[in-house]
Amino acid sequence: MHKVSVIMGSPSDLETIQETINLLKEFKVPFAAKVLSAHRTPEELTAYVKAEEKRGVKVFIAAAGMSAALAGVVAAHTTVPVIGVPIETKNLKGLDSLLSTVQMPPGVPVACMSIGKAGAKNAVLFALEILGVTDGNIRKRLRRYRENMRFQIRKTKIKL
Amino acid sequence: MHKVSVIMGSPSDLETIQETINLLKEFKVPFAAKVLSAHRTPEELTAYVKAEEKRGVKVFIAAAGMSAALAGVVAAHTTVPVIGVPIETKNLKGLDSLLSTVQMPPGVPVACMSIGKAGAKNAVLFALEILGVTDGNIRKRLRRYRENMRFQIRKTKIKL
Amino acid sequence: MHKVSVIMGSPSDLETIQETINLLKEFKVPFAAKVLSAHRTPEELTAYVKAEEKRGVKVFIAAAGMSAALAGVVAAHTTVPVIGVPIETKNLKGLDSLLSTVQMPPGVPVACMSIGKAGAKNAVLFALEILGVTDGNIRKRLRRYRENMRFQIRKTKIKL
Amino acid sequence: MHKVSVIMGSPSDLETIQETINLLKEFKVPFAAKVLSAHRTPEELTAYVKAEEKRGVKVFIAAAGMSAALAGVVAAHTTVPVIGVPIETKNLKGLDSLLSTVQMPPGVPVACMSIGKAGAKNAVLFALEILGVTDGNIRKRLRRYRENMRFQIRKTKIKL
Amino acid sequence: MHKVSVIMGSPSDLETIQETINLLKEFKVPFAAKVLSAHRTPEELTAYVKAEEKRGVKVFIAAAGMSAALAGVVAAHTTVPVIGVPIETKNLKGLDSLLSTVQMPPGVPVACMSIGKAGAKNAVLFALEILGVTDGNIRKRLRRYRENMRFQIRKTKIKL
Amino acid sequence: MHKVSVIMGSPSDLETIQETINLLKEFKVPFAAKVLSAHRTPEELTAYVKAEEKRGVKVFIAAAGMSAALAGVVAAHTTVPVIGVPIETKNLKGLDSLLSTVQMPPGVPVACMSIGKAGAKNAVLFALEILGVTDGNIRKRLRRYRENMRFQIRKTKIKL
Amino acid sequence: MHKVSVIMGSPSDLETIQETINLLKEFKVPFAAKVLSAHRTPEELTAYVKAEEKRGVKVFIAAAGMSAALAGVVAAHTTVPVIGVPIETKNLKGLDSLLSTVQMPPGVPVACMSIGKAGAKNAVLFALEILGVTDGNIRKRLRRYRENMRFQIRKTKIKL
Amino acid sequence: MHKVSVIMGSPSDLETIQETINLLKEFKVPFAAKVLSAHRTPEELTAYVKAEEKRGVKVFIAAAGMSAALAGVVAAHTTVPVIGVPIETKNLKGLDSLLSTVQMPPGVPVACMSIGKAGAKNAVLFALEILGVTDGNIRKRLRRYRENMRFQIRKTKIKL
Repeated sequence: MHKVSVIMGSPSDLETIQETINLLKEFKVPFAAKVLSAHRTPEELTAYVKAEEKRGVKVFIAAAGMSAALAGVVAAHTTVPVIGVPIETKNLKGLDSLLSTVQMPPGVPVACMSIGKAGAKNAVLFALEILGVTDGNIRKRLRRYRENMRFQIRKTKIKL
Repeated sequence: MHKVSVIMGSPSDLETIQETINLLKEFKVPFAAKVLSAHRTPEELTAYVKAEEKRGVKVFIAAAGMSAALAGVVAAHTTVPVIGVPIETKNLKGLDSLLSTVQMPPGVPVACMSIGKAGAKNAVLFALEILGVTDGNIRKRLRRYRENMRFQIRKTKIKL
Repeated sequence: MHKVSVIMGSPSDLETIQETINLLKEFKVPFAAKVLSAHRTPEELTAYVKAEEKRGVKVFIAAAGMSAALAGVVAAHTTVPVIGVPIETKNLKGLDSLLSTVQMPPGVPVACMSIGKAGAKNAVLFALEILGVTDGNIRKRLRRYRENMRFQIRKTKIKL
Repeated sequence: MHKVSVIMGSPSDLETIQETINLLKEFKVPFAAKVLSAHRTPEELTAYVKAEEKRGVKVFIAAAGMSAALAGVVAAHTTVPVIGVPIETKNLKGLDSLLSTVQMPPGVPVACMSIGKAGAKNAVLFALEILGVTDGNIRKRLRRYRENMRFQIRKTKIKL
Repeated sequence: MHKVSVIMGSPSDLETIQETINLLKEFKVPFAAKVLSAHRTPEELTAYVKAEEKRGVKVFIAAAGMSAALAGVVAAHTTVPVIGVPIETKNLKGLDSLLSTVQMPPGVPVACMSIGKAGAKNAVLFALEILGVTDGNIRKRLRRYRENMRFQIRKTKIKL
Repeated sequence: MHKVSVIMGSPSDLETIQETINLLKEFKVPFAAKVLSAHRTPEELTAYVKAEEKRGVKVFIAAAGMSAALAGVVAAHTTVPVIGVPIETKNLKGLDSLLSTVQMPPGVPVACMSIGKAGAKNAVLFALEILGVTDGNIRKRLRRYRENMRFQIRKTKIKL
Repeated sequence: MHKVSVIMGSPSDLETIQETINLLKEFKVPFAAKVLSAHRTPEELTAYVKAEEKRGVKVFIAAAGMSAALAGVVAAHTTVPVIGVPIETKNLKGLDSLLSTVQMPPGVPVACMSIGKAGAKNAVLFALEILGVTDGNIRKRLRRYRENMRFQIRKTKIKL
Repeated sequence: MHKVSVIMGSPSDLETIQETINLLKEFKVPFAAKVLSAHRTPEELTAYVKAEEKRGVKVFIAAAGMSAALAGVVAAHTTVPVIGVPIETKNLKGLDSLLSTVQMPPGVPVACMSIGKAGAKNAVLFALEILGVTDGNIRKRLRRYRENMRFQIRKTKIKL
């Protein structure tokens, strides 16, 4: 059974979220990914979130742009942790997606990541950290991932 | 049967929306007003919007603050016109509510008004303009309302 | 006689609004489209708005950029519903157009859509929703349009 | 005959603009002040601007808040210089008024001052500078005003 | 042993975070709370985060204002999930705290909540959701908490 | 003798301001144009502004980007009207130039135009309006210019 | 002879800068403080900056609000380090002062601190750090100051 | 021994900071440059800053983007002056980097430069100004650099 459920609000969000999907594969964490919109397929979204919760999914990742209601609406239907990724937008540069995703009213939390691809990558890493709370194996792999990043930076040579 | 359905996302929004309610009474347009949240009562909200549409409501007014998903979620469940009022907020001064309400993705429109009380009043006037498309009586009263405003401004005396 | 009157503030806005025009044709709703500016042709604009109202137009759509006075000035001359589309701008990315269009003072409402092409499309859909209040046929077509959108999203396949 | 014509969009703007009026008196420049709104009294505004131009007014000062179309609409009806004062607003702190006043499209200029009372005072000083282009007496008084300011600052003692 | 570790960047943040602390007590989840600053006590902070991780803490909540480096620095030293709360600020109204907390570079995720007290409350609820991934009892209590919220909203009566 | 004095803060601003220069030629108004920076050539700037005032220049146009001190510093040295043009910038899109130019403290006015090329064109038109206060010939040409703009817009045909 | 020269653009800035002055006294660093405006006393400012440089002043601190040209203009007249403090403003909350102070064009640097009192305090600490580059005694006192801050934070007790 | 220590948060920042490095060479000031991240290599960063301070480095330049904690974290570990350069970002255009770098809490100062390449160049010039406080030779070269800039601007010819 998959543990992470990735939902994106529009097929065009796939470009941003692809990195998320690749990183999940790299970590060999079973996941599902689906396009469902809070505004265009509200009923399918509600049904899907409930079904996923019943199937025992451990974390949701919801990525959407503009008036990004997606993560908040997913969170409204579950007490499984929901991570929100604000998709970059043409005009307001993702400021609209960011404020819509992060400024949740008290009572229904969404864990907002940074705008765009950086946030998409961090969404997976954060999902893994959540799974790592009780899974020592994932914790170990996360530490190795960090070590790798550290190593990449340490070996950087600057041509002066 | 009521024609205008006012939904606000939180009991604290009532202060902003009270003016809307008073203006609706003044215009003697039958209406219903209810507190329902896209994040805290998603199912009641969906059921209510569908029931209202079935009862033949002609316009929705949805007022919410912060990550203001309300108007968009109402619009997701109906093709009855939805007017959104972004409620002012403590920190970002309603900029979050404004962007969440106005930046709807293509396909599901919300008619966004200005932030706070000005927007709440305009929401009713716009609802009346919609009803006025086929109701000559409402059109007449709207013109009289405008004449009154005009008269108020024209009679203003400035002490120099 | 046409029912929807589209006004844009500058010939360069046509690129953004073209989608609106195409969608109106697709829905077979009779409409007129004209370039008239609140700043460069104020008198022609006033005369045109009044004439359109007399001809029985049911909804205005006004699209303009920068200090986007157009929608507000159209609304000042009529009690027919006015939908505003903030055109994207080179420097402030449409934030100027958005605030100029949406932040109407109390008394003269404008229904603001999202910035740019998304807003242009939603402007037509909202105009149709207004017409649909008393026209069951339009309501039916709007529902079919929504069904289509839903279907498009549901059939999206993600390559994992 | 008065030379400066002050127009404000709402009676509530008087508080901000009062300083303008007092400074005009102090400089003994004949002026008129009137409340007229681009949105609530568009026709009276148009007629008034044209009449003022015919009466030989030399400068307009237009102060308005929110979607501040006033200065732009005044400028649309005259080639007499128009100075715009963006009034501070409750929610967006005058950012809406500022962008609506300053971001005029090419062809119809408005001279935008700073937000609120600072801008109101500067509007008069700028009007006087315009009159001073051909009036040596006003130029002299403006220089004296500057000297006074300079003197005020120079004599400031700081308690260390 | 406590499961949630609350760190705030300044004693003045306590006012915002008090609600967090109260809610943790209400849920009877053992926790520790400490004032430690990324800028003023960087070494104590690093040592504390590592010690907390060793002690088996399951979630960090980090609340800070202005250039809010706290949550990011905590996240830099652990792979335990870190929830960030941007504290409201006097001048930029928390926009500085928000962007500093949410715009994390790829590789080191922080789960950002909304600005101020709303975010502080949601930080606890999100921490509980994380614990709830493997703790059915907490999940149950969270659902009851949601039910309560729902009930509060449903029983709201509006005086028309 | 030239009547309009155009100063730009950097050679790279010429691209934006070229239109200004062309329009001044088109109107056959004698002018001078010079690159002088408030930050890099403060003394030359001061000396130049004073010399220009002595030579009887009637209006200054000052265009600068980023922390655009230019227009304000010019205004600090003269009571001749100063028109400011905020140059667009790479990162903050001219918002920095705009706020630096428009938010003048009370006492020293600058007439701020819109950001970039639109503002550059309007700067000339506004300079001409100032000259037109006492020059009937310029007024006439300005009206003709407006008529032309109006004509351009009126003859626009939209392909439906 | 004093080593630090504090300049503020307006007597009203004293409230913000008072803390700076007190901290300088506490550190027993000789300093001068003066009100001089880039816009209202440009010549006195230029003369003063040059005289201060000749007197051997080691650091300037320049505090100003709105279109805060002060720090940049001081920097234009000296190669002595200039620290800028953006004063908080009524409408734009210091965002205008911040962008005017920090966004200096390449070639003339200003060291910008945070908005308001926090920045005023940091301006002194940064001035001391500059002096400390060659003054071991100041470096020692700065470290003691940091130790004190650290101690204050460490001893903070939170009532749970 | 090198006097200036340049740290950048990511290899991709090199493009922005290259100009800094070149200018340091041009001024023949010994320096070191290194990639170290506050989030990805926190321990290496801390150790490096302390080692650099011990080696007698006189100024730090820290360049980072997004939630740019780098300059603040460097400043947290030293009382040597730290100059921060906010790197431009894809979505928020460097506004996130700017606010994260400049809005330091009271007690730990960072000298923030403008966003991007302009700021990178100014960082070096400001570092040189700090060194110039006690090094007459550097002061002389800085003045010559300014003279050169001035000369470049003065010789600019505009084609009218």
